[in-house]
Amino acid sequence: MRQIAERLEDSTARPAKGGTPDEFIDVFLGRIEDRLGEFAPSESRLPERLSKSVRYSLLSPGKRTRALLTLLTTHYWDADPEHAIVPACAIEMVHAASLALDDLPVMDDASLRRGRPTSHRIFGDDTVILSAVALMNDAFGHVARCDALPERSRLDIVDYLSCAIGLDGLVAGQEMDLHTATQASLPEEVELIHARKTGALFAACTKIGARVAGLTDSRLDDMDEFGMCLGLAFQTYDDLADVHSDEETAGKDVNNDGNKPTLVSILGPEEAERVADRHIERALGMFNPGHNEGAPLVAFVHYLTDALKKRIDVKR
Amino acid sequence: MRQIAERLEDSTARPAKGGTPDEFIDVFLGRIEDRLGEFAPSESRLPERLSKSVRYSLLSPGKRTRALLTLLTTHYWDADPEHAIVPACAIEMVHAASLALDDLPVMDDASLRRGRPTSHRIFGDDTVILSAVALMNDAFGHVARCDALPERSRLDIVDYLSCAIGLDGLVAGQEMDLHTATQASLPEEVELIHARKTGALFAACTKIGARVAGLTDSRLDDMDEFGMCLGLAFQTYDDLADVHSDEETAGKDVNNDGNKPTLVSILGPEEAERVADRHIERALGMFNPGHNEGAPLVAFVHYLTDALKKRIDVKR
Repeated sequence: MRQIAERLEDSTARPAKGGTPDEFIDVFLGRIEDRLGEFAPSESRLPERLSKSVRYSLLSPGKRTRALLTLLTTHYWDADPEHAIVPACAIEMVHAASLALDDLPVMDDASLRRGRPTSHRIFGDDTVILSAVALMNDAFGHVARCDALPERSRLDIVDYLSCAIGLDGLVAGQEMDLHTATQASLPEEVELIHARKTGALFAACTKIGARVAGLTDSRLDDMDEFGMCLGLAFQTYDDLADVHSDEETAGKDVNNDGNKPTLVSILGPEEAERVADRHIERALGMFNPGHNEGAPLVAFVHYLTDALKKRIDVKR
Repeated sequence: MRQIAERLEDSTARPAKGGTPDEFIDVFLGRIEDRLGEFAPSESRLPERLSKSVRYSLLSPGKRTRALLTLLTTHYWDADPEHAIVPACAIEMVHAASLALDDLPVMDDASLRRGRPTSHRIFGDDTVILSAVALMNDAFGHVARCDALPERSRLDIVDYLSCAIGLDGLVAGQEMDLHTATQASLPEEVELIHARKTGALFAACTKIGARVAGLTDSRLDDMDEFGMCLGLAFQTYDDLADVHSDEETAGKDVNNDGNKPTLVSILGPEEAERVADRHIERALGMFNPGHNEGAPLVAFVHYLTDALKKRIDVKR
């Protein structure tokens, strides 16, 4: 627990309702970091600059929220989260790659990420583009070779991951953020961008976590929706916290979105927070009543929500 | 045949030894283009700029050498090439994405490709980076969802494709080409870059084509080696032709490699051509003696070799 609390810079968060995810998180954060370390190329692997760039993006001190969410979902559905480690790390590889690309000068032109200089400031734009391609590409390779999972599951996971990245996912979200976001004037238009830029990968986490546990029916769609709601809520909580944040606290560039409308600018902070709260309520409503209500996954949702909302409170 | 001949600008090539691949190529070029057209997003799909960029890269008039090579290999091993259409198109998606990235101002800064302005000149660097990610990503998704293939084959194909793109493949080749190529002084050093930048994807074509046909034994490794040899040879024939070429004939920027050593600059044109010829000999030696010696695949190798060597002769 100490680890995630420190990472969230929120060590005083009150214990979450329905049990705490402490033990689970302590154990599995370590497992995730270990596996990411194994997946990263060694620093001396040729070409060295590329290997170092991949390592820098992948092993920077992230919260690993997406990987944890994947493992917690597998666990919620009564399967061994250990079986979801490879897909969970694959999702973190995709996430790390997308951050490195988003930060490029031709995109968001960010200088700070996770409290460190952005990748392109160190390795150059060309190498960072190539290392992002390598990371996304390796994510698929690791899933395909993951013998711990049945063949059919692996194929479905490749499919879900591909959908989360492509023209209905991350890539489209970033394109819209860069080129059409300034024209958005309705909350639905802003949330469509959030759904692709953030929601799609969160939805992939929970859908993949459930698929590893063997789900193939409508409960899989519920888990997809669960992740999407979480992603939408977290994006708005993040925007709310960023409004009055500074670089040192956030560990990344803030307020460099220019004139892009957000739910906060369109609806005002109170109503934007209510929208995010409703997404969390809807997410929690996706759980099967009576099934594992005390599971760490449920606690994790409350815990993350509390931590994010606390960031907002501090700024008020 | 007319189609590929026109594309190769070599309509007078003599008939290749061991039968001509004409009929096969006529039929399957059409099938490849049809399927690529289906895989490309519609122009009106939102976000439009991204969809148009993906279409522009994917549907530009390429020779489709890699897709044909994949189908011809499946056919050589006595299986229906129709079953290899999806993986073959996936490889073309990866190839199209890699060309768009290589052409970026922060990489080769090319202005002309396949006789048209490079993608970034039309859609901007940011959108082209995102569309390349979308293309590579969709390639994996299409393979994973390809119900015409057994699950195990699809997973192997995802694996082979991932290896051809990643830190032992395209990405590493481009990184080396950008940052270490100028230091190469030995033929082996230049060929290591060729192996990654060109050979790896050619090897994936022939390995994947053979895998679709059901091969899993040492003949699969032979087909991998076969493709690698072809890729190495073709890269050097291409360098030889480029030496005295101009943009109009080549349809792409030429002689913009600055001071990067090539086999031609290190060994001289005659010896470089002999090295490439030996790669072709080695490639042809990978075929099983007595097995389908008259197959279109064998003829295709001779045919492409002749076409490429003719481009060199014209320049001499």
